[in-house]
Amino acid sequence: MISKAKIKHIKALQAKKYRKEHQCFLVEGIKSVDELLRSDFEVVWVAITSQFMEARRALLNQRAAEWTACTEAELVAAGTFQTNDGALAIVRCKPNTPPQISNTLVLALDTIRDPGNLGTIIRTADWFGVEHIVASVETADFYNPKVIAATMGSFCRVNMYYTDLEKFLASVSKPVYGAFMNGTDVHRIAAPENGILVIGNEANGISAALEKFISNRVTIPRLGKAESLNAAIATGILLDVFTQKKD
Amino acid sequence: MISKAKIKHIKALQAKKYRKEHQCFLVEGIKSVDELLRSDFEVVWVAITSQFMEARRALLNQRAAEWTACTEAELVAAGTFQTNDGALAIVRCKPNTPPQISNTLVLALDTIRDPGNLGTIIRTADWFGVEHIVASVETADFYNPKVIAATMGSFCRVNMYYTDLEKFLASVSKPVYGAFMNGTDVHRIAAPENGILVIGNEANGISAALEKFISNRVTIPRLGKAESLNAAIATGILLDVFTQKKD
Repeated sequence: MISKAKIKHIKALQAKKYRKEHQCFLVEGIKSVDELLRSDFEVVWVAITSQFMEARRALLNQRAAEWTACTEAELVAAGTFQTNDGALAIVRCKPNTPPQISNTLVLALDTIRDPGNLGTIIRTADWFGVEHIVASVETADFYNPKVIAATMGSFCRVNMYYTDLEKFLASVSKPVYGAFMNGTDVHRIAAPENGILVIGNEANGISAALEKFISNRVTIPRLGKAESLNAAIATGILLDVFTQKKD
Repeated sequence: MISKAKIKHIKALQAKKYRKEHQCFLVEGIKSVDELLRSDFEVVWVAITSQFMEARRALLNQRAAEWTACTEAELVAAGTFQTNDGALAIVRCKPNTPPQISNTLVLALDTIRDPGNLGTIIRTADWFGVEHIVASVETADFYNPKVIAATMGSFCRVNMYYTDLEKFLASVSKPVYGAFMNGTDVHRIAAPENGILVIGNEANGISAALEKFISNRVTIPRLGKAESLNAAIATGILLDVFTQKKD
């Protein structure tokens, strides 16, 4: 059973301010909790339904500081999901440390505000093997429950670092890619194995302050009439092009 | 000013059942209403703030059966948006008629349930010049306010037809593409200018009933560890590859 005090704590963790203060966040749903238990995150507490408990008892004992059996109804009452198929965890946030960027592709998010978009971008990065994302401090919070849900477990494998993107881009010596309407057809460039791909804000694209750091302006060819692509869709297309095997 | 009766009608149009009964739907935000006024949709009624009214007076007189001035607060009170920058329209639904498919690429949606995903897919189709989408009857409603919002105006240019996808695919004689984990690398196939691209459900992918119609199984190469891509992201990547200019 989930105690009243714990329910209060879980509800509070839906707010960024409280997450920052307590350095904890929520993971909901059995699939995400399963990935969490196989990750290197510090698991503070897990609530799990009896249906899923037995098969995970050893792993829970090993990986979770505390855990409890509960019902699906309790999970829904405490968490953010409208339906929850079996588990909810309270997890320790990781420190916000700069990535060790070697010769790989890194995503830089210039203020992605929508949690669903951010989660989808993280999931897409994980599909294409991008392990590091650097984001402006105005970007949605990695630990927002909607972000965690939209990553479909990829929050376990992609690291995100929040910083002043202008200073970050000024400090790196790598090719910096960004999508604009007037760039080179992205299919015509030599795809980089090492570089930074800047993804612009949903409404305003790449900000003027960052534009000067873009050494390689690329364009996703448009055949129709939409004014723009969704930021996560553009990320997916660019990463697909950038990571294609070269003959 | 927006009358109480109108507010009641607008609120009711948020439900699919009432939209079906009245054959009307909502368009919110000045950008979407602007695209609407330049489209071939029948515009039943528009509420617009004074800030945007004057510049559109002639167009409103010509395109809207009725229109009224109002405040932003009234738009928010009546509609679904948390903030609305200037307009809301009631629009007549188009009849659900089969598309005249010539030698073009058509999307077939095998039960896309999330309205945000559907809207993003419609916007992406519009970017790549895909004008026709055929969808299973279980797919989210094109006229859902969340779908319309996510299309960012592309609902004006992309036609959607709901039908029994199994019967539809059985009736066409075109190559049918679908993404699977074990298909041919999509970058290695001759991209089709004529064909049907089936997009699977968010949780279950392409259903067993439709799998037998897929003549060309393709795969988006994965370098990382995510189990799958979001359905809209996969659509964007596949359309980008399929519509690339051939040398």
